[in-house]
Amino acid sequence: MQQITSPAFFIGREEKGLISFGSGQPDLPPPKEVFKVLPHYHAFRYGLVQGQINLREDLSKEYPGSTKDDFIITNGASEALDLSIRYIAKHGGKKILIHRPYYYAYPKLVELAGMKPVFTELVAGKIDIGDFEEKFKQCDGAIINSPCNPAGTVQDHSIMRAIEKLSRDLNKFVISDEVYKDIIYVKNKYQMKGQKIIRVDSFSKTYDMTGYRVGYIYSKNKELIQDAINIKNVTSLNTSIIAQQMAHAALKAPKKYIKEHLKIWKERRDVMYEGLVDLGLETWKPEGAFYILASMKNPTKVMHDLYYKHKLVVYDGNWFGAPDKIRFSYAVDSEKIKEGLKRVKKYLESKK
Amino acid sequence: MQQITSPAFFIGREEKGLISFGSGQPDLPPPKEVFKVLPHYHAFRYGLVQGQINLREDLSKEYPGSTKDDFIITNGASEALDLSIRYIAKHGGKKILIHRPYYYAYPKLVELAGMKPVFTELVAGKIDIGDFEEKFKQCDGAIINSPCNPAGTVQDHSIMRAIEKLSRDLNKFVISDEVYKDIIYVKNKYQMKGQKIIRVDSFSKTYDMTGYRVGYIYSKNKELIQDAINIKNVTSLNTSIIAQQMAHAALKAPKKYIKEHLKIWKERRDVMYEGLVDLGLETWKPEGAFYILASMKNPTKVMHDLYYKHKLVVYDGNWFGAPDKIRFSYAVDSEKIKEGLKRVKKYLESKK
Repeated sequence: MQQITSPAFFIGREEKGLISFGSGQPDLPPPKEVFKVLPHYHAFRYGLVQGQINLREDLSKEYPGSTKDDFIITNGASEALDLSIRYIAKHGGKKILIHRPYYYAYPKLVELAGMKPVFTELVAGKIDIGDFEEKFKQCDGAIINSPCNPAGTVQDHSIMRAIEKLSRDLNKFVISDEVYKDIIYVKNKYQMKGQKIIRVDSFSKTYDMTGYRVGYIYSKNKELIQDAINIKNVTSLNTSIIAQQMAHAALKAPKKYIKEHLKIWKERRDVMYEGLVDLGLETWKPEGAFYILASMKNPTKVMHDLYYKHKLVVYDGNWFGAPDKIRFSYAVDSEKIKEGLKRVKKYLESKK
Repeated sequence: MQQITSPAFFIGREEKGLISFGSGQPDLPPPKEVFKVLPHYHAFRYGLVQGQINLREDLSKEYPGSTKDDFIITNGASEALDLSIRYIAKHGGKKILIHRPYYYAYPKLVELAGMKPVFTELVAGKIDIGDFEEKFKQCDGAIINSPCNPAGTVQDHSIMRAIEKLSRDLNKFVISDEVYKDIIYVKNKYQMKGQKIIRVDSFSKTYDMTGYRVGYIYSKNKELIQDAINIKNVTSLNTSIIAQQMAHAALKAPKKYIKEHLKIWKERRDVMYEGLVDLGLETWKPEGAFYILASMKNPTKVMHDLYYKHKLVVYDGNWFGAPDKIRFSYAVDSEKIKEGLKRVKKYLESKK
C-alpha cells in the first residue's frame, strides 16, 4: 500500500471499478465545436507568449472595458496563479494572505516563490472581512476564490466590494481565482475591478477542457501583464497553440452549453448533498463549484481506506487546510454519486 | 519605435516582408503522422501530471537503461528547466553555474528561483574545464548546453565525461539541456549518466513542434522526479494531453525524418556561415543547432536598426551574455537566408 501524500497521486488515474469523488474532473464533454477545428489543423510554429490574438480578442468581449492587451493565456489557471504570485515575489513581496480552507496549491505556490502564506479562517465558508482587513494590511497581496474550492461557498457581493476597496485603498494586489464563476447555484458572479486586481480564470471547468490546460490572467495593470509575459517567456513560452485554438472554438460555441451544464451540476449537487446528510455527516449546501466538505475524523485514514478497500477516491481535507474534513467532488454522473455514497455508507457501517 | 528588451517581443510575431533570423523557429513542418491523430481525437480529461504513459514508455525506448518512471513530460524544455532549477532551490541551493554565452533563459530562471547565477566563460564556444571545476565546487548545480544556443558549438566527449565525473564526485546536479542533440554536424551525441544528472529535452527542434510545447525531464534520480511532479502539480498540472498525443505520433514516425532534416540544416548552416564570412564578419563555423554568433559593435542598436529599417529580425548578443555579438538563427530556408544577408549587407554599407 503506497502512502498517498498529494492529489498528484490521483490526478489522471483510471482503474476499473474505481469511482472518483477526487479531482475536479468533469465527465461531461466540451462543446462539440472544440473538436471541429482539429481535422484541418496544421500550424506548428511558436505562438505569441502572451497568447493567440483571436483568443484574446474574443475573451475581451466577455469582459466589459477590456482589450486583448489585458490578457495572458496560460497553461491552465495553475500557471496564471504561479505567474501572478512570482510577479509579486519578484517585486519584493514577502507575505500573501490566503483564506482557509483553500485550494491546495495556494500555500505551496506562495512558498515556492519564496514568500510566506498568512491565513484567515473562513467562517462557515465565508470571509470574515474584519480579520481579512487586519491581516491584509501586513501582507503584500491576497488570493481569494469564489466559488470556493473546497468549501463550495460563494462570497457575498458586499464582501467582494469590501475587498475591492481594500485593494484600492491599500494599493495591494488581490488575485481573484474565478475558475468556477460559471458554476454558481445561488447568485450572480461579481466582477472585481481595480488597478491591483488580477483575475484568474480557465476553460477547464466552464467548458470541461481540463486536460487541454488553457487558462488566463485578466488585469488592467500593464506592468503586471508585461512582466508576467517576461516571466512566462523563460518558464514555458507560449501556451500550446492547438489547445488555444480549441479554447477559441469553445468561446464561440452557443452559450446555452454553459446553462445546460449548470442545470446538470445542480442536480448532482442535490444528490450528493442529500446523500451525505442522509449518512448523518455534518456539511453545508454548496452554492457553487462541484465540491462539498463533510466532517469526518481522521480524514487521512478515511481516504486511504476508501481508496484501497472500497475503490472510492475522496480527498483528505488536510490538503485544503480543512482538518477533520473530507472533500467530495461531484463532477461525475448521479448514478456514480449514488454508488459512491453506498461505498461511504458501507465503510461507515464497518467502523461502527 | 518601441524599445526591444527581450526575445518575447519577437516570438510569434509575423509581419509581411519580415525575415527572421531571430527565434529558433524551424519553418519545416513536423512529421505528417503528427496531424493524423487529430481527426478522431476526443479525450478531454486531466492527464497524469507526470505525463501520458504511452509517451513516456516510448521515450524510454530511446534511452538505454531507462523506464517510463524516469521521465516527466513538460511544457517544452522551458518548463523542464524551470522545474529542475526550482527543485534545486527548494532543497537549499544558492548558486548555479552557467557557461557564458548562454541560452537567455538560464540566468533569469536561476534568479526567479531565488538563486544566484555564477558564470564560466566559454573559450571559442568550448567549456574551460579547469575554470568550470573550480567554480562548480562553490555552486549547488550547473547547467550545460551542447549543442549550444547561441554559440553553435558541441562540447567534446572528454569535456562531457569530465563534467559527468565532477557531478558524481562532488554529488552535485548537472542539468544537461540537450534540445539540439539531433542537430549535430560534426560528431555523435554524448549520453551523460549519473544519479545527479538531469537531462532536459524537447520535441520542438527535433520534430519542429515548437508551438505545441512538449518537452521532458529524464533522470534516474527518483527524489528529483517525485518532487518535480509535486511542483508541477501546483504550477501547471499535466502538459496538454493533445500535444502529448501528437508528440507520441512524432516519436513513432520513421526516423529518416530526423536525418533528412539534418541534411537541410547543414545546407542552411553553410549558406549562413559563408554569407557572414563574405560580409567580413568575425564568426566560427557552427557544429550543431541552428545559430551562429557574429561580432558586431553595439548589437542593441544593430538589432533595432535591422528590425525597424530593414525588416530583419536578429537577436542582441547581450541577451545571451555575448556582448558585441549578434545571434543569427538560420532556421529558415536558404532563399530567405540569402535575402536576409542582403539586408545585413545593405545595412553595413549604410554605416560606412
